Amino acid sequence: MSEKPNSPTPIVTLTSDFGLRDAYVAAMKAAILRRLPSAVLIDVTHQIAPQDIVAGSIALERAVDAFGPGTVHLAVVDPGVGGRRRIIVVRMREQFLVCPDNGLITWAWRRLGKAEAFNLTWRPRRFSATFHGRDIMAPAAAMLAGGRPVHEIARSIDDPILLDIRPLKPPARSGRIIYIDHFGNATTNIPRAAVVGMAIETSGRKLRLRRTYGDARPGEPLTLIGSAQLLEIAVRNGSAATSLRLRVGDRVRIVKK
Amino acid sequence: MSEKPNSPTPIVTLTSDFGLRDAYVAAMKAAILRRLPSAVLIDVTHQIAPQDIVAGSIALERAVDAFGPGTVHLAVVDPGVGGRRRIIVVRMREQFLVCPDNGLITWAWRRLGKAEAFNLTWRPRRFSATFHGRDIMAPAAAMLAGGRPVHEIARSIDDPILLDIRPLKPPARSGRIIYIDHFGNATTNIPRAAVVGMAIETSGRKLRLRRTYGDARPGEPLTLIGSAQLLEIAVRNGSAATSLRLRVGDRVRIVKK
Amino acid sequence: MSEKPNSPTPIVTLTSDFGLRDAYVAAMKAAILRRLPSAVLIDVTHQIAPQDIVAGSIALERAVDAFGPGTVHLAVVDPGVGGRRRIIVVRMREQFLVCPDNGLITWAWRRLGKAEAFNLTWRPRRFSATFHGRDIMAPAAAMLAGGRPVHEIARSIDDPILLDIRPLKPPARSGRIIYIDHFGNATTNIPRAAVVGMAIETSGRKLRLRRTYGDARPGEPLTLIGSAQLLEIAVRNGSAATSLRLRVGDRVRIVKK
Repeated sequence: MSEKPNSPTPIVTLTSDFGLRDAYVAAMKAAILRRLPSAVLIDVTHQIAPQDIVAGSIALERAVDAFGPGTVHLAVVDPGVGGRRRIIVVRMREQFLVCPDNGLITWAWRRLGKAEAFNLTWRPRRFSATFHGRDIMAPAAAMLAGGRPVHEIARSIDDPILLDIRPLKPPARSGRIIYIDHFGNATTNIPRAAVVGMAIETSGRKLRLRRTYGDARPGEPLTLIGSAQLLEIAVRNGSAATSLRLRVGDRVRIVKK
Repeated sequence: MSEKPNSPTPIVTLTSDFGLRDAYVAAMKAAILRRLPSAVLIDVTHQIAPQDIVAGSIALERAVDAFGPGTVHLAVVDPGVGGRRRIIVVRMREQFLVCPDNGLITWAWRRLGKAEAFNLTWRPRRFSATFHGRDIMAPAAAMLAGGRPVHEIARSIDDPILLDIRPLKPPARSGRIIYIDHFGNATTNIPRAAVVGMAIETSGRKLRLRRTYGDARPGEPLTLIGSAQLLEIAVRNGSAATSLRLRVGDRVRIVKK
Repeated sequence: MSEKPNSPTPIVTLTSDFGLRDAYVAAMKAAILRRLPSAVLIDVTHQIAPQDIVAGSIALERAVDAFGPGTVHLAVVDPGVGGRRRIIVVRMREQFLVCPDNGLITWAWRRLGKAEAFNLTWRPRRFSATFHGRDIMAPAAAMLAGGRPVHEIARSIDDPILLDIRPLKPPARSGRIIYIDHFGNATTNIPRAAVVGMAIETSGRKLRLRRTYGDARPGEPLTLIGSAQLLEIAVRNGSAATSLRLRVGDRVRIVKK
């Protein structure tokens, strides 16, 4: 049952809300390696908050942006497992994404397009009702990483589910915090182009746009263009989320300096 | 000192209570890679609660069940390190387990048999009194993954230590919660065959057996056969452990619908 | 842009304060694999407390000590990112370290010498102001692991930044706690040679030197020579940090038995 990879080191990344305490991630990896022993497995994160599809979507976009052609990304945040939600494959940038059809692809789809979506019709002879990540999606990821044509296991669709989260398009002047990272830095949906020469207002404070963290004094709040090329709110040597009480969904305004 | 693998991609899995903050896991991986540079290393979990042998045992069983022939599983939850406890090797399903002889093998031994046990007699010339995972067990795992015959490094035994935890055997009608996962789902020792057509009673509540999480209403408690083929108590879109105040060891009864 | 490794399985280890929730670690791994697809990537830890350079330094020393010749260690705890701090390469034990010049190399430099330091002058055509781990250090690590001579990308220096933390040298009789691990064991800067035949005093208690944890009664505090060959303060089956209220920086005295 093992696949022949079309590249010498086929990479499969994994993103989930499984945490690292249980053996679930290893079970998915085993399912991939049984089909494709040469697969190189890279964890993106398994610490998406349980069922937080928006955060999963953002991690997945980062993974697609970071890796090269031939990479397959498996993402499993799947509250609808065993129900009627589809499982989809998305092709973009010569990479594949495999995940439940619940909006997980949104941020990659909207930021990195242009993409094609497929309904994964392949099913193994037997599979559980509670762990499609292991039983269906991991084998499918292995097949794609192994060079199997997507059309053999999936059918084109034009209606993948997308969440209501999108990059701000100028001349709009008001965006939102979409993600808060481990350091307490808050990422917004505001791209670089929208803020050049402007200042930022959030939680009633006006913040200057800096080039890097060290351009502020220790403890001082600042904004900058982060490594995802989006406006980020930070506090030098501190947590912006804690000091400024920021939360995902908070409004962020682009204002005059 | 390096071994020649008998398979092109020898897999070694790792399970421990070391956590991910310190360099201990990397030290074990280095010890494996120094002997077997081609080893593919897969973390099962390192977040077993310190010295929780039962939980380690369950993670290890999941790993053995997930992986294929040739895999070697290294498991280190080792409160007796440096004392007189043995280190053992277990062979089952054409896989090897290497761990302290303190009951870690119990769940795999009882669920997946049939197994043979060995006392690992091999020792390196020098080793610490506090980190046998790195100094003894990791090299032994590398040797086995590299194709070295088990009899060259270990001697048959028939008395490995087993904990008092076992799958419920029908017609018994009362089992226990044996594990609580990251989502707050509680796994019991009750196999599928024991519950067909029945209902479940725990914490004074009678719960229906469902096929998957989505068959209950959000927030509703349910039971189902989980991905380990054991009865599981869950709450849709929530934590059963928190809402139902479940703990490992709690009694679970099989009752009429 | 891909490198040819000088060993069949070039190992690159990763140490950071990035945590495991975000996609930052995967972004660094992608940057390495894009240049060196055959790299074997080993996480040392990503749970260094944000900006805790001392703890990062200790993890890094453990990694250098554990791995063999040819290994490249990438360490990113980098509060000065985007500012004027240098990025350095250190060569020791036929291994390379790549990290910001902020003291991260201290513990390896002082314990494992003898080492040579270089200022990394290589820069990619474009790089962010906030994530040099991904944009500069990861590619440099890949180049070195791929066999590129260090002099092609870096220039010798003799003034790398070193923190004020060093192994105690006899006849000094007073050391410090330098690290507290996941189990609550406290590592000191006191090497084995300094304590033979002596006792230890800390937090107003006199503690005996034991061979291993099991030589004390459950709950009893003890000291021993840990797996890093340094004096460690522990509590059998418990957390020394919690029971004895130990903290990094606490003084530890070597006294008569």
